[in-house]
Amino acid sequence: MAANVAVIAGAGAGLSASLARLLGKEGFRVVLAARNVDKLAALVQETGAQAVETDVSDAASVARLFETADKAGPLEIAVFNASGRTRGPIVELDPEAVKQALLVGAYGGFLVGQQAARRLLARGSGSILFTGATASLKGFSGSAGFAMPKFGLRGLAQSMARELGPKNIHVAHFIIDGQIEPPGQAAEPDRPDRRLSPDAIAETYLAVHRQHRSAWSFEVELRPWVETF
Amino acid sequence: MAANVAVIAGAGAGLSASLARLLGKEGFRVVLAARNVDKLAALVQETGAQAVETDVSDAASVARLFETADKAGPLEIAVFNASGRTRGPIVELDPEAVKQALLVGAYGGFLVGQQAARRLLARGSGSILFTGATASLKGFSGSAGFAMPKFGLRGLAQSMARELGPKNIHVAHFIIDGQIEPPGQAAEPDRPDRRLSPDAIAETYLAVHRQHRSAWSFEVELRPWVETF
Amino acid sequence: MAANVAVIAGAGAGLSASLARLLGKEGFRVVLAARNVDKLAALVQETGAQAVETDVSDAASVARLFETADKAGPLEIAVFNASGRTRGPIVELDPEAVKQALLVGAYGGFLVGQQAARRLLARGSGSILFTGATASLKGFSGSAGFAMPKFGLRGLAQSMARELGPKNIHVAHFIIDGQIEPPGQAAEPDRPDRRLSPDAIAETYLAVHRQHRSAWSFEVELRPWVETF
Amino acid sequence: MAANVAVIAGAGAGLSASLARLLGKEGFRVVLAARNVDKLAALVQETGAQAVETDVSDAASVARLFETADKAGPLEIAVFNASGRTRGPIVELDPEAVKQALLVGAYGGFLVGQQAARRLLARGSGSILFTGATASLKGFSGSAGFAMPKFGLRGLAQSMARELGPKNIHVAHFIIDGQIEPPGQAAEPDRPDRRLSPDAIAETYLAVHRQHRSAWSFEVELRPWVETF
Repeated sequence: MAANVAVIAGAGAGLSASLARLLGKEGFRVVLAARNVDKLAALVQETGAQAVETDVSDAASVARLFETADKAGPLEIAVFNASGRTRGPIVELDPEAVKQALLVGAYGGFLVGQQAARRLLARGSGSILFTGATASLKGFSGSAGFAMPKFGLRGLAQSMARELGPKNIHVAHFIIDGQIEPPGQAAEPDRPDRRLSPDAIAETYLAVHRQHRSAWSFEVELRPWVETF
Repeated sequence: MAANVAVIAGAGAGLSASLARLLGKEGFRVVLAARNVDKLAALVQETGAQAVETDVSDAASVARLFETADKAGPLEIAVFNASGRTRGPIVELDPEAVKQALLVGAYGGFLVGQQAARRLLARGSGSILFTGATASLKGFSGSAGFAMPKFGLRGLAQSMARELGPKNIHVAHFIIDGQIEPPGQAAEPDRPDRRLSPDAIAETYLAVHRQHRSAWSFEVELRPWVETF
Repeated sequence: MAANVAVIAGAGAGLSASLARLLGKEGFRVVLAARNVDKLAALVQETGAQAVETDVSDAASVARLFETADKAGPLEIAVFNASGRTRGPIVELDPEAVKQALLVGAYGGFLVGQQAARRLLARGSGSILFTGATASLKGFSGSAGFAMPKFGLRGLAQSMARELGPKNIHVAHFIIDGQIEPPGQAAEPDRPDRRLSPDAIAETYLAVHRQHRSAWSFEVELRPWVETF
Repeated sequence: MAANVAVIAGAGAGLSASLARLLGKEGFRVVLAARNVDKLAALVQETGAQAVETDVSDAASVARLFETADKAGPLEIAVFNASGRTRGPIVELDPEAVKQALLVGAYGGFLVGQQAARRLLARGSGSILFTGATASLKGFSGSAGFAMPKFGLRGLAQSMARELGPKNIHVAHFIIDGQIEPPGQAAEPDRPDRRLSPDAIAETYLAVHRQHRSAWSFEVELRPWVETF
């Protein structure tokens, strides 16, 4: 019997790598989608995950990603980690960069969510997990080019949760409120755990996926103990 | 001396017409931006406003709109009323329609806001007013294609308010929580005022524009007295 | 014909005085409720308002306040400005002070709101306006003794708005996000308008009271242009 | 070595019983606080938990509860489940009942939280978990007598989280958005899991308590898959 599949879109070093390791260990067949799969070579080697070159803002590319994943087994989890952003005072933002941020960070979430929903509805269960940020809830000065896609992604997640929940698809949105520990960075013994451990985040994602359906979480915020909020 | 200018982007029948009438009466030179200016002929005739054919999702088109408005006088108010939307179950949404909704409803807000900010920063004052909806705060089932742009627009408005407020530019976001009374529709004597009067909305927009800067509102919700919320 | 009455509960120097002046000028008969009416002597002298000694956390005292107001004319507006608070690290807060803060700031709002609702329902119209603060939306470190009553008051206001709106009673909640300019304080020419002008706040309260019922605001935030939020 | 202690205040049948069972199984010494401990006899018998008669709205009674718990071992978790409420149209609410609801549901949370904070600060770690409801976020028509304490409790929880988080005390607030399955109720085979399983809720409470401190959740909502929100 084929293992169930977890698709992780927007895969890079931090959180996606932790998710790939954890879900792999838990028996999932992991499919990683990234614009540049070369960067994933070590992770693929380590975890046995499959990497698929994908532009999450391109409908055909996302369709191909899921067709590839279909060959690996039935979909059980889709995670959308991709993020578009550009920063600066409003009058200095490059319109083209803002458009790209929206297309990757919000429209990309829609494309991935739609493909995942088709498969999970057919199976009658599974989870779609969206990764948000502080900027999903608050538009800071100078961050219109990040808040726009992140707010938009949250609107998508809410809408999908309300539609798909009663069809037994668990849609959840995570607010990552702080900086994720960069891989390979030196430890800070005098300021322990002040950045989010990607392994710790991955544990909560899995716990939410495994929640009993009588008590599902939609939105879960995660922040370091010392983070101001 | 030239009258001050109010640019209303996304002008159609309802709210934009009420704003054009009210701001015209208050001495503003009104510039209406719409994809199809033919529909505005009667309003232009009635109010003396100027209509400029504009695609709010196109950077060059929005730049031309504001260059045209510059000739009419110094900008004091910019209102973004344009709205992109598509509806349906998540798996049935047309990706191209979702993309257009985002580009018109969120990216268009950015383009208009950026051009307005340039001018108001140069003058040192003025207001930028964004029109939101119930879907700015809540993503309903079947409305991902409306919630995404509306959430995104709210993130933009928040970010601009935080950046521009201390520079004396008043950025505000209105939540229109209900249906706006369609123009020319028969009155409902037995269900009075159950839909938002666009004239009443326009009054609040103007009152917010005129607030003393020691007590500015950022977000103002407006709904009919009988509306469930 | 008797002028309509505005009851302002929790009257002190700042906002309540500005409201008393503005509403008096607009033709209302103003009734001020305060624990210590001696402090209101100058305001009463200036505006012709009536002062009634009231403990807003005492049901019988609040009932007497409204019975006194009934003699002045029909109620049209009730404003709840009273505020209970105590500050400090959670382990150092005096339980008795926390209880009093809740009883004045939240329970007092209920008592005033209930008496006002009885009268406005009988007349079929009018407004009940609650004054909130930054702490109505965010519980800061060290401010549990202020956030608890302010959150509670907001819950009350929401509940009353949903029940009474469709009965033509306009319930609104204001978030005063910043410091109100203390009366008689020296001007700050180099930092103009960095604190809320109580006169400016009063103008927005009146504008909300006068909104057309097809487009009512429930929650309105007010903050100085330079305030961080 | 003494087992660590979990205090559950406001213990009754549903959630508190599930927590007592789960935490007992996980090695905690469970102390149940209830106004009427007779009702807990079976649970005490089953789980070996200790029951302490407590009025959560009385400072001395809550102090005695924690002194009793101190004898059982060092505190690690405190859960506040008590809830005060009264329902009805605003003009029909009994002021005394509203006051009691506030004192039990909000002030009681403060008293329990304060006693717990003293002990956890001395130990340098532990969790304080508050149980909220739909009414913590939304004041419905007719539910002022429930929304006021629940909003107030949320303000308390936020304030404590911001103060105590950086001191390694994990404060969390749960939104139980739906009805908890009543104990012993007949199953509904045709409408499975439409009410929250108290065992499932308890699992999430424990998972939150065990989160790595680099990625703590403050607010977690839980609702049945079929619940409208």
